Amino acid sequence: MQKDFASLKDYCNHVQPIQPLEYVSRQKKLAETLKREGARAFIMEPGATMSYYTNIDWSLSERPFLVILRIDDDLPTGLNMTIVTPAFEATRARENLDQAKLPPQIEPSIVEWREEDSPYDAVGTVLNETIHKVFMETDVRLFIFDGVSKVLGNDAVEVSSKAIRTLRMVKSKAELDILRCVNHATELAIRKVRHHVRVGMTENDIADLMESALHTAGLTNTWVLALIDENAAFPHGEPGKTKRVTKDSTVLIDTGGELLGYQSDTTRTFFLGPEGFNKTIEDAWYTVRRAQEKVLNQAAAGMPCAEVDLTARHVIDEAGYGQYFTHRLGHGIGMEMHEEPYMNQGNTDQILEPGFTFSVEPGIYVAREFGIRLEDIVVVNQEGKLELLTSGLAQNPWSL
Amino acid sequence: MQKDFASLKDYCNHVQPIQPLEYVSRQKKLAETLKREGARAFIMEPGATMSYYTNIDWSLSERPFLVILRIDDDLPTGLNMTIVTPAFEATRARENLDQAKLPPQIEPSIVEWREEDSPYDAVGTVLNETIHKVFMETDVRLFIFDGVSKVLGNDAVEVSSKAIRTLRMVKSKAELDILRCVNHATELAIRKVRHHVRVGMTENDIADLMESALHTAGLTNTWVLALIDENAAFPHGEPGKTKRVTKDSTVLIDTGGELLGYQSDTTRTFFLGPEGFNKTIEDAWYTVRRAQEKVLNQAAAGMPCAEVDLTARHVIDEAGYGQYFTHRLGHGIGMEMHEEPYMNQGNTDQILEPGFTFSVEPGIYVAREFGIRLEDIVVVNQEGKLELLTSGLAQNPWSL
Repeated sequence: MQKDFASLKDYCNHVQPIQPLEYVSRQKKLAETLKREGARAFIMEPGATMSYYTNIDWSLSERPFLVILRIDDDLPTGLNMTIVTPAFEATRARENLDQAKLPPQIEPSIVEWREEDSPYDAVGTVLNETIHKVFMETDVRLFIFDGVSKVLGNDAVEVSSKAIRTLRMVKSKAELDILRCVNHATELAIRKVRHHVRVGMTENDIADLMESALHTAGLTNTWVLALIDENAAFPHGEPGKTKRVTKDSTVLIDTGGELLGYQSDTTRTFFLGPEGFNKTIEDAWYTVRRAQEKVLNQAAAGMPCAEVDLTARHVIDEAGYGQYFTHRLGHGIGMEMHEEPYMNQGNTDQILEPGFTFSVEPGIYVAREFGIRLEDIVVVNQEGKLELLTSGLAQNPWSL
Repeated sequence: MQKDFASLKDYCNHVQPIQPLEYVSRQKKLAETLKREGARAFIMEPGATMSYYTNIDWSLSERPFLVILRIDDDLPTGLNMTIVTPAFEATRARENLDQAKLPPQIEPSIVEWREEDSPYDAVGTVLNETIHKVFMETDVRLFIFDGVSKVLGNDAVEVSSKAIRTLRMVKSKAELDILRCVNHATELAIRKVRHHVRVGMTENDIADLMESALHTAGLTNTWVLALIDENAAFPHGEPGKTKRVTKDSTVLIDTGGELLGYQSDTTRTFFLGPEGFNKTIEDAWYTVRRAQEKVLNQAAAGMPCAEVDLTARHVIDEAGYGQYFTHRLGHGIGMEMHEEPYMNQGNTDQILEPGFTFSVEPGIYVAREFGIRLEDIVVVNQEGKLELLTSGLAQNPWSL
């Protein structure tokens, strides 16, 4: 079985990881944006945003570990970078910083707080001037926000603005190269697995095949949602042991993994039965496919995310399935599998910009009957048009 | 090898899970405390606190899933419970609620928010009266706090007070029964594993043995930190493949797991070499042991957590190792492995109360030489004295 996946081997070996200098340009853009927003600093807890700006990977615990990026016009990036770490983990923090291999333009300092002292006082020593506005990353835990607010003043600290959040949404060429390869690999892996799906297999069997294919392609942190027939009517269903593929089954595979810190996420729904076996499900499949196509053709830079969602939704509404398309059209993707921007009708403020990457995943879910979803990742290119980061939309529900 | 762990099998089978009525008493106490604090509601994201009050287990995602407990004197618990869920996951939320098997005194309602609507407006419909003060759980993410604050008013929302947080620190008899068994089992498992530690083994080998013993005892979500000789000088070191046990090694095993939603955490450091082989390390071991004993004898209800830490620290200071005891004395333990109350010198406000459970884990870490830590879990009993939740402190560094 594994042999057949051999063509996936080393599929992305040619792709370069993010280079040290890219952290300089990320921090420079952050510095400019902070200034434009009248803010003096940006504070993060461990997570994707910390990794994005500093290449530091740390686990959340009850002990605050923070990175502060503070405006300093005398420095090459325009930002001073300070790590606030528990003193007894300072050795590990230094090792982590060494592994981050930041370029010489970024010279972080480390401030340690001892167990008996307040980590928030340590933040106060870093931001000891009169600070009027400090942004904190969106996922920071409330007790951290509360502790920092008490030291810096309640009005000084805010959740990071849309302009700050948008910086991570706009992908660089290096990021797009990784995202393109990991999503190509994932889509190709689904097509390989599709040939091995046999009558009698369980959802877990299909998931195991899928994991094996993704691992062969070099992906880590892989995950699979494989759903058979009416089980696919739950968008977030969980694969089980009992349901089995029949000769006429519909199979939905939603899967992805990680490459060099970036994520893939692709869904294909396919039929084992012959053409004409179930006209209703076939029509639904082609409706979902048309919705994807319309988005690809019509969405463009300048369009609000809400309208991107509605573009697909109209197609499904017109086919009479409006009430069965129960979720948003898509989500941003990058270092996190789900990140901003979100393509939903409520997101009227966020406008598509070149460099945004997101999923286009319309679906139709009829409870106790069937579920269809097709998902591809796109980027808004420099011409403002949508471009696929998979090798192409599914052509039909049999050969994909 | 597994055979020898047979005596661990079903070790905790006699222990009862938390019974449905306990959720009633938890919510009642929360209602009383909220009233005393002048607050009208408590809002949680998925996590240990949500599970504690509602037995609901949900994964964090970018889509807010909240539980709101709002004062309502007409209800048996004094609280109205509302789940705010993404509409397209409402089926799964209902299934989750069914599995929670809450007693009839708790009748939750479910409010769904559609993808195109604001989850915070949904919170607004639940708390639509004039609300003066609402507490949010400490680990809520900043964007959730920000969204709710915008709807309810900036001054209406606060991080949960110490009185609220203290409720989870005080363990019930049912909780103590679980914590006692899971920590007994863990300590017993370390002693079993100790007999299998042989010259030539790596840290990973020891960790594998340990996992096997804990699984035999019925624990899940197990974890092990096994460190040999000078590797133990890093309190949070990671076990490796290269370092091997010698005939004179010092081995530190810090390990734990989960039973019925509650955690264990125990550390033993032991010697393979004979008595007198290394007097320095032996003395350090007995110093750490004395620090534990002093805490057990002297700490009591009414003592500030800071003083509990200092009680152990004085013993280690007097032995000349003060600078090598680099971390706090201990942490609370319950549904989370690390939770409040924390035993550190800075925690002068928190006073020990009957029902508190925490670790007593002094250590001495001399970089590039050795590390010693002994850790046992204790409860403040109804007489206000400390009582071990393990079967006893280590007697000596050879037989444990």
